[in-house]
Amino acid sequence: MSLKVKVAVIGATGYTGIELVRLLWQHPYVHLTALTSQSYVDQPLAQVYPHLLPYCGEVCRDQGDEQWLEAEVIFLALPHGHAAPLVERALAAGRRIIDLGADLRLTVPAVYREWYQLEPPAPALLAQAVYGLPELYREQLRQARVVANPGCYPTSVLLALAPAMRAALVEPQTIVIDAKSGVTGAGRSPGLATLYGEVNEGLHPYQVARHRHTPEIEQELARLCGQEVLVTFIPHLVPMSRGILSTIYADLRPGVRFEEVWETYLAAYRDEPFVHLLPRGTWPHTKWVYGSNHCLLALELDQRTGRLIIASAIDNLVKGASGQAVQNLNLMYGWEETTGLEAIPLYP
Amino acid sequence: MSLKVKVAVIGATGYTGIELVRLLWQHPYVHLTALTSQSYVDQPLAQVYPHLLPYCGEVCRDQGDEQWLEAEVIFLALPHGHAAPLVERALAAGRRIIDLGADLRLTVPAVYREWYQLEPPAPALLAQAVYGLPELYREQLRQARVVANPGCYPTSVLLALAPAMRAALVEPQTIVIDAKSGVTGAGRSPGLATLYGEVNEGLHPYQVARHRHTPEIEQELARLCGQEVLVTFIPHLVPMSRGILSTIYADLRPGVRFEEVWETYLAAYRDEPFVHLLPRGTWPHTKWVYGSNHCLLALELDQRTGRLIIASAIDNLVKGASGQAVQNLNLMYGWEETTGLEAIPLYP
Amino acid sequence: MSLKVKVAVIGATGYTGIELVRLLWQHPYVHLTALTSQSYVDQPLAQVYPHLLPYCGEVCRDQGDEQWLEAEVIFLALPHGHAAPLVERALAAGRRIIDLGADLRLTVPAVYREWYQLEPPAPALLAQAVYGLPELYREQLRQARVVANPGCYPTSVLLALAPAMRAALVEPQTIVIDAKSGVTGAGRSPGLATLYGEVNEGLHPYQVARHRHTPEIEQELARLCGQEVLVTFIPHLVPMSRGILSTIYADLRPGVRFEEVWETYLAAYRDEPFVHLLPRGTWPHTKWVYGSNHCLLALELDQRTGRLIIASAIDNLVKGASGQAVQNLNLMYGWEETTGLEAIPLYP
Amino acid sequence: MSLKVKVAVIGATGYTGIELVRLLWQHPYVHLTALTSQSYVDQPLAQVYPHLLPYCGEVCRDQGDEQWLEAEVIFLALPHGHAAPLVERALAAGRRIIDLGADLRLTVPAVYREWYQLEPPAPALLAQAVYGLPELYREQLRQARVVANPGCYPTSVLLALAPAMRAALVEPQTIVIDAKSGVTGAGRSPGLATLYGEVNEGLHPYQVARHRHTPEIEQELARLCGQEVLVTFIPHLVPMSRGILSTIYADLRPGVRFEEVWETYLAAYRDEPFVHLLPRGTWPHTKWVYGSNHCLLALELDQRTGRLIIASAIDNLVKGASGQAVQNLNLMYGWEETTGLEAIPLYP
Repeated sequence: MSLKVKVAVIGATGYTGIELVRLLWQHPYVHLTALTSQSYVDQPLAQVYPHLLPYCGEVCRDQGDEQWLEAEVIFLALPHGHAAPLVERALAAGRRIIDLGADLRLTVPAVYREWYQLEPPAPALLAQAVYGLPELYREQLRQARVVANPGCYPTSVLLALAPAMRAALVEPQTIVIDAKSGVTGAGRSPGLATLYGEVNEGLHPYQVARHRHTPEIEQELARLCGQEVLVTFIPHLVPMSRGILSTIYADLRPGVRFEEVWETYLAAYRDEPFVHLLPRGTWPHTKWVYGSNHCLLALELDQRTGRLIIASAIDNLVKGASGQAVQNLNLMYGWEETTGLEAIPLYP
Repeated sequence: MSLKVKVAVIGATGYTGIELVRLLWQHPYVHLTALTSQSYVDQPLAQVYPHLLPYCGEVCRDQGDEQWLEAEVIFLALPHGHAAPLVERALAAGRRIIDLGADLRLTVPAVYREWYQLEPPAPALLAQAVYGLPELYREQLRQARVVANPGCYPTSVLLALAPAMRAALVEPQTIVIDAKSGVTGAGRSPGLATLYGEVNEGLHPYQVARHRHTPEIEQELARLCGQEVLVTFIPHLVPMSRGILSTIYADLRPGVRFEEVWETYLAAYRDEPFVHLLPRGTWPHTKWVYGSNHCLLALELDQRTGRLIIASAIDNLVKGASGQAVQNLNLMYGWEETTGLEAIPLYP
Repeated sequence: MSLKVKVAVIGATGYTGIELVRLLWQHPYVHLTALTSQSYVDQPLAQVYPHLLPYCGEVCRDQGDEQWLEAEVIFLALPHGHAAPLVERALAAGRRIIDLGADLRLTVPAVYREWYQLEPPAPALLAQAVYGLPELYREQLRQARVVANPGCYPTSVLLALAPAMRAALVEPQTIVIDAKSGVTGAGRSPGLATLYGEVNEGLHPYQVARHRHTPEIEQELARLCGQEVLVTFIPHLVPMSRGILSTIYADLRPGVRFEEVWETYLAAYRDEPFVHLLPRGTWPHTKWVYGSNHCLLALELDQRTGRLIIASAIDNLVKGASGQAVQNLNLMYGWEETTGLEAIPLYP
Repeated sequence: MSLKVKVAVIGATGYTGIELVRLLWQHPYVHLTALTSQSYVDQPLAQVYPHLLPYCGEVCRDQGDEQWLEAEVIFLALPHGHAAPLVERALAAGRRIIDLGADLRLTVPAVYREWYQLEPPAPALLAQAVYGLPELYREQLRQARVVANPGCYPTSVLLALAPAMRAALVEPQTIVIDAKSGVTGAGRSPGLATLYGEVNEGLHPYQVARHRHTPEIEQELARLCGQEVLVTFIPHLVPMSRGILSTIYADLRPGVRFEEVWETYLAAYRDEPFVHLLPRGTWPHTKWVYGSNHCLLALELDQRTGRLIIASAIDNLVKGASGQAVQNLNLMYGWEETTGLEAIPLYP
C-alpha cells in the first residue's frame, strides 16, 4: 500500500463522485484516503450507496476537517462555483488537483461570468489549469498540477469534431450539435424534472441554445481551428440512466472529399486507446460504451446535401466525467493511460 | 347502429392497426365490421391483444375472403408494397380508402422506385390519392376517395416547418432534422433490433441520411415553398414505446425577425384543434402528447448563430398514424374533426 | 352545462389529483368547477402539467378560499391526516365527499392510530363513510354521502380475494400477498427514492411487513369471511410508471376443488363491468389495463402443493385511485357505472 | 500467455455466452482460445456485439470444427438438450467442462424427463457432474471435472434458503417463492414476448407453477434439509435488462426465534466473498448488484403472522450464470475464488 498514491474525493456522494470512487478503488496504483460529502457527513458510504456494502467501511467526512489535504491528488466533484478556494488551498499545500466541475474550464473570465452568473476564479489560477481532454492536451496534462476535467457534452462533441477542425474540413459556422443525454447527467439531487414518473416514456429538449457547455465547446473548437466559432447546441433528456449521443452536422468545406475526412479521422484516432472510429455504416449505440471509458465515432456524408454527419457516443459518467479524470491521473503520473479503465462495457 | 358508417381495418394486428381499432371502437359514428390479419387468421383479436378482452369477441379475418369489401371505408395498415391491388379493388367497389402505408404518398413514381426499390402504383391511382395531413390539405381531404396517410416522421416535421416554408422565413437548403422516435415505430414483428435487452438504456441513430421518409418530407416541403428542397434527416431510436420528437434547425432568411416567425406560427395554428404552439421558453415533452392526437411545437431563435430551432412532439401511433387517419375520416364525412380523438394525453 | 353536477378536486396537482382531472373532464355529466393545490396556488394548471395546455385555462386555487365548497361533490386527493376537517366542513354545507386518502378507510380508530401514528377522525365521521369498492359495497355507495375510496394495493388484493373469502374457499391464515407497483404510487413529491437514476433497471421490496395498506386489507378480508384475518403483505417498487400486480398465495381449504373456485369467481364477476377473469392459463400484464379502470384476474392451482395462486392487475392511478372514485361518483348519482370510464387501455 | 489456462466458450453469442466472454477476457489466468456460435459462424464477434470492437478481432467458429476441443476448459452456454454429446466428447479428450445449461443439474433422470420432455443424459454422466453452487459444494467443485452450473432463479433462491433449511428453521412445506427477473433471462432470440413495446411499462407472471427451475430448487432444498420438499415458485418478468429478486415466504418452525435465524445466516455467510446479509431493515435492490457476482440477502420476521421473509438479489447474468461459472473455474484451479470477479457493481 505504501507505494500507492494517496487520493481524495471531495463530493463523493453525487453520481460523479461515486463513479470516481468506483474507478479509483479498482485502480491498482491508488489509495483512496478520504471521501467528503456535504449531505452525508459521518455516515458510512455503504449506507448512502448500499451497492458498496461488500467493499468498504469508509465514512463520509466533512470537507471542513481538511483530512483530504493529506492526499497527494485531490479530485473535486462539486457543483460549479465551489472549486476555487479548495484548489488554492490544495495548491498551497503542494497537491495536485483534478476538478470535475466547470469553474476552471473557461479561460476567459468574462465568458464564465456571462454563462455562470458568478465571479470566475482568479486569472492566475485559471492560467495553471490544463483542459483535461487527453486526446487534445496529452503532453500538457503530463505536467499539469491542476486539471480542468471537461464537461460531458464537450467531451463527446470535441472528440467528434477535433480532427475536422484541425484539418479545416468543415465550415465552422455551420456546426449544429444535437445532443442526447441520460438522466444521471442531472445529478442526484431530488427534483421534479428527474423523477421517474416524469422522465420515463418521454423525451424533450432543454436549455435550448443556452446550455452552459456551449462556451466550453466553442472555446476548444476555436483553439483547434484558429478562429472564433459559434455553434448551435441543443441538449435533450432521454429516458436512460447513462450515456450521451451527440449527432453533429456541418457543411464540408468546398473541395473536401469524404474520403479525406475518413482518412483524417482514422489517422487521428488510430493510436488512441479510448476513441474508436466505427466501420462505415455502423452507428454508435450508447449501450456499446456503458460503464466504459470509450468514445465511439461514426462518420457519413449526406451526399444529397453535402453535409457531414458525425455521431459520438460516450458514457457520461465515465469518459464524460470520472473515467476521463482517472485517465488524466494516469497521465499525470506517467502510468499506462488505460490503467484502471480496462473494464469492458456492460452489455446488455 | 344502422346510421353508423361501416369501416374495415386491413392489417389490424400490427401496432398501427391495433391503435386504429382502439380509436375506431371509441368513435361514435363508426361501426367496425371487419378486421383482417395475416399472422392471426381466425384467432380472436382478444387473444392476440388480451387488453381488448373486456371489449370484444371479434375474430381476425383472412384478407382474402374480402368480407372487408362490404365496409364503406377501408383502412389499410400494411407494410409498403401491398396497397395498390387492394386500393384498386376497393375503388372499383365504390369504397373509400385510407392507406396508412407509404405506397401512395410519393407523387413521382421514380422517387418511389428509388427509395423503396419497388414498382410504384399506377399513376392514375397516385393521382387520386390526397396526402392526408389535414393541416395542409383539409379541403381536398373532404372530397377524397383515397387518402395517403402521412408517415410518422413527416407528420412531425411538416407541421413544424409548414408555416416557415409557406412564408419563406427560412433558407430551405439549410434544414437539418434530428428526429427521435420510440420503438413502436418499428412495428411488432420480432427482430433483434427491437428486443428489450437491446433497446433499453441506450440510444442510437439509424438509417442515417437514407431513411425512406426523407423524400416524403422533401416532396411536401417543396410544395409548400415552391422550389426543390433537400434536407438532412437523421432518425434515432429512443428507449420508449411511443413518441416522436423532431428537433429542426434552419437559418432564418436575411431580414426575417424572430417575432415575425412567431406571429406566423401563431396565426397558422390558432384555429387548429391538434397543433399547438407552446409558450416561448417551454419545450415539448413527448409524454405531453402520449396517447393523443396533438402535436406540440416550440420555436426559438439561437441568437448567437441566427439559426431557427423548432421542436415538434407527437405520439407516433396517434397523430403520426392512426389518429391522423381518423381525423381524415372525420373530414371525409364532414364530422367534427376531433370526433373520437378527444382523449386527454395519459400523463404520467 | 346547467344540468351537469358541479364537482371540485382538492389536491389537484398530485398524480392522483391530475388523473381525477383527466377523468372528470371527460365525464359527460360533470362540470369541474374548482381545483386546488398547495404547491401551485394561482398558477395555471396547464403550466404545472403542460399536457393539459390544449384543454384548459383553469388556475389552481387556494384551498383556503373555499370556492370548492360551492361544488356538489368534493374529491379529496390529499396525503393522509388532512381529510377530517374538510370532510366535516363539506358535510355541514350539504356536500358529498369522495376521499381518496386513507383517513376514513379504517373503521377502528385504534388501528388507524397504530399504523398512521395520528389521531383518527371522530367516530361519528367514520360511521358515515362507506368503503368505496363498488364490487363489495355497491348498494351502500348509492346512498353514500361520504366515500372512503380504497387504497391502490387493497383494491387489487380485495378484488382478487373477495369471492374466495366470501365462500370460505381458502385458509385465511395462509394468505401471502406479494405486490408490485409502478412508481407513480409514491406520488409526485421529489425524493431520492423515486429519481429515475435510482429506479430504472432495478427492483426492490419496501416497507416490508409494515405497509399501511395492510390493516385496510385485513379489515375488509375479515368482513368478507367473518373472522379476523392477518396477512403477510410485501410491496415492491418496479421500474414502470403505472400498474400494480398482486400475486397472492393461499392454501385451499380441505375438500375444496379448483373447479369450485373457478366457478365461484366466474359467477362473482360475470356481470361486473371492470373485473374480468382471464381464460385459464393466461396471466395478467399490467400493460393490459394501462390507463383503464379494469382489473384483470387469473387463477391457478399449484397442484403439487395444493396452493391457490391468484394474480390481479390494475392501473394504480385508475382502478387503484381516481377511476374508482369516478365509478363511485357514478353510483352515487345513479348514472351508468361505466360513464366516463370507457376508455380502452393504451397498448402498447 | 503460456502459463494461462486455455478455455473455450460454446455458444458465445447468446446473452449468457457473451457475458462469459466479458468475464473471461478480464480474467488474469485465462486465455480464451475459441468461441463458437450457431447463428454467426465466421462472423467477427465485434460485428455481432459492437461493444467489443475496441477489444478483439475474434471470429465466431463453427462448433463442428472442434477447434474448441483444444482448450483445457470448455464452457457450454447452450439451450437445454444439447450438452450431453459435447460433454462426453470433451471428457473423452480429457477436458474439464462447465455447463451453463440445465441438462446436468437434475440428478434423477425421470424428473428431467418430466419437466424438460427430453431424454436425460446417461446416468454415468450425471454422476460425474457437481452442482456448481460454490456456497454449497465448494469442496466437491475443487475436484470436479464436470460442473452443472445452476440456473439463475435457483441460485437466488438457494442462497436465500440454504442456512434455514440446513438448520431446520422453517417449515419446508410452507415455502412460497415469488421471483422477479429482468428480460435478459429470456435470451437473445427475437420473440414477441421480449420486444421492447411488449415489455416496457408492464409486469406479469409467467410459467406459473410450472417453471423448469422448480425441480432444481426442490432437489437442492431436499438435499439441504434431508426430506422431500415441494415449493410454490412463480416467476415474473420485469421491465429491466438484468437482475433477479426473489422474495421468499416460509413459516418459522415452532419455537424458533428470529434472532436464531439471524445468527444462523450471519454465521453461514460471514466468510463468503459474494453473499452478504444486509443490515436489518435494509432491503436489496437488484441495482445494487448490477454487473457483479454478489448476492444480497435480507431477512425479516412478519411478527403478526410468524412468517419469515427473505429477499435475495442477484444479477441473473453474473451470479445467476456466467459469473458463477467463473467462480467455479477459480475453484477448479485453486485460484482465489474472486479472481476476475472483483468488479464493483455499476451504479447507477
